Amino acid sequence: MTNKPVIILSKPQMHENIGATARAMANFGLDSLRLINPRDGVPSEKAYSMASGADSILDNAVIYADIHHAISDLNIVIATTARHRDMNKPVMNAECSVRYICDKINDGAKCGILFGGERAGLDNDDIVHADILVNIDVNPQFSSLNLAQSVLLMGYEWFKSVSSDVPKNDKISDIDFSQLPASKQDLHYFHEHLETELTRKNFFYPPEKKQSMVQTLQNLFIRAGMNTQEVRTMRGVIKALSKSHTE
Amino acid sequence: MTNKPVIILSKPQMHENIGATARAMANFGLDSLRLINPRDGVPSEKAYSMASGADSILDNAVIYADIHHAISDLNIVIATTARHRDMNKPVMNAECSVRYICDKINDGAKCGILFGGERAGLDNDDIVHADILVNIDVNPQFSSLNLAQSVLLMGYEWFKSVSSDVPKNDKISDIDFSQLPASKQDLHYFHEHLETELTRKNFFYPPEKKQSMVQTLQNLFIRAGMNTQEVRTMRGVIKALSKSHTE
Repeated sequence: MTNKPVIILSKPQMHENIGATARAMANFGLDSLRLINPRDGVPSEKAYSMASGADSILDNAVIYADIHHAISDLNIVIATTARHRDMNKPVMNAECSVRYICDKINDGAKCGILFGGERAGLDNDDIVHADILVNIDVNPQFSSLNLAQSVLLMGYEWFKSVSSDVPKNDKISDIDFSQLPASKQDLHYFHEHLETELTRKNFFYPPEKKQSMVQTLQNLFIRAGMNTQEVRTMRGVIKALSKSHTE
Repeated sequence: MTNKPVIILSKPQMHENIGATARAMANFGLDSLRLINPRDGVPSEKAYSMASGADSILDNAVIYADIHHAISDLNIVIATTARHRDMNKPVMNAECSVRYICDKINDGAKCGILFGGERAGLDNDDIVHADILVNIDVNPQFSSLNLAQSVLLMGYEWFKSVSSDVPKNDKISDIDFSQLPASKQDLHYFHEHLETELTRKNFFYPPEKKQSMVQTLQNLFIRAGMNTQEVRTMRGVIKALSKSHTE
């Protein structure tokens, strides 16, 4: 049972930055690192050198081929992004976003914090999966934070948040899992189901608009923060509506 | 009249770290850097390279021979130190210490934040001059923050502290109304539409559960906070899914 957020780097490039990320994580007691499609593969000597002793984080880092697999077991994902995106998702600063996931973790949820690669940050295909966008407070005239610095600031807020005297939920056995935010995997299947049925009914027209229409729908349902039971209900809704005949 | 804290590095060693410090300062709008007895003298090319464009901070950095001269015009000095010191001085975390100096600055005081060199941190001869000691919240099992990271975290807290009541966007004319939360009337029609189609497809079974099922769906969509455009899209979804035949 994890009670800490997972750090997820999407398409990181330099091993030095992966190592610096591990060091920043260790500074604030975070230990679980996931790498989506890292440009240079498994963390090398350069990463270990920059980790300054946070080796176990690199040893245990898990590599994923895509974001779906990287977040499938998580209930909540927040994504740091400097730019304003026309995604109609809640935007919070680092402090508020971390308080939010602390609350969810206390409820029994598994949470992840998603960071983009050095060059381009997160693309829309990553961002669409986020429940919340995080804009770290920074001087708008000089806003470039490097990857490890962003991890450092988020880790710092997390550490502050859990170090304060917030009463924790320790009654894990009382958790009603059907009331937790659905796993990202369940959500993924739901979105696939919806997209399949809509495609079958020629909803996506003209075809070149399909991608943005799919994103609009994904955003809307991710924002709803459905629990497991609600996802089940919505799948029933799609199934019922899609029936060719009334019975 | 300065209204920002001055950053003071006592006996910094590597120029790279002075440059990274300048960058971190720029990230949070700080501009005044003082160097006490830097090992390698005036910031060189290596410092500028790490500053990533925060050149003016390095250009204007002032070098002092000792701490007395470096802080002589200041009213309040706070000093970051990882270790507990038997100095009987108030110890605060980063957030509280920054709030404290913000208050003092509002009263007209000049304030400085003092950081030790890379190897040994601050020595007692430095610390004695501090009004407050700052212990940055960090994992005690892995507490090594490098110089620029410490500056980054203090700058971040300062920026958050002074940005807290920033006036928000008041350019009403720029508002895209299709991006506003949908009217409650639009939402009502949407829910009616969904309920009608689901009733037609015999979704609500057994009938005595209908009311709670309807409420579940309403809750979910209200929580999504759909804008006008998204409501329109979702009505298209219902219509498409409900079609009896694929065309």
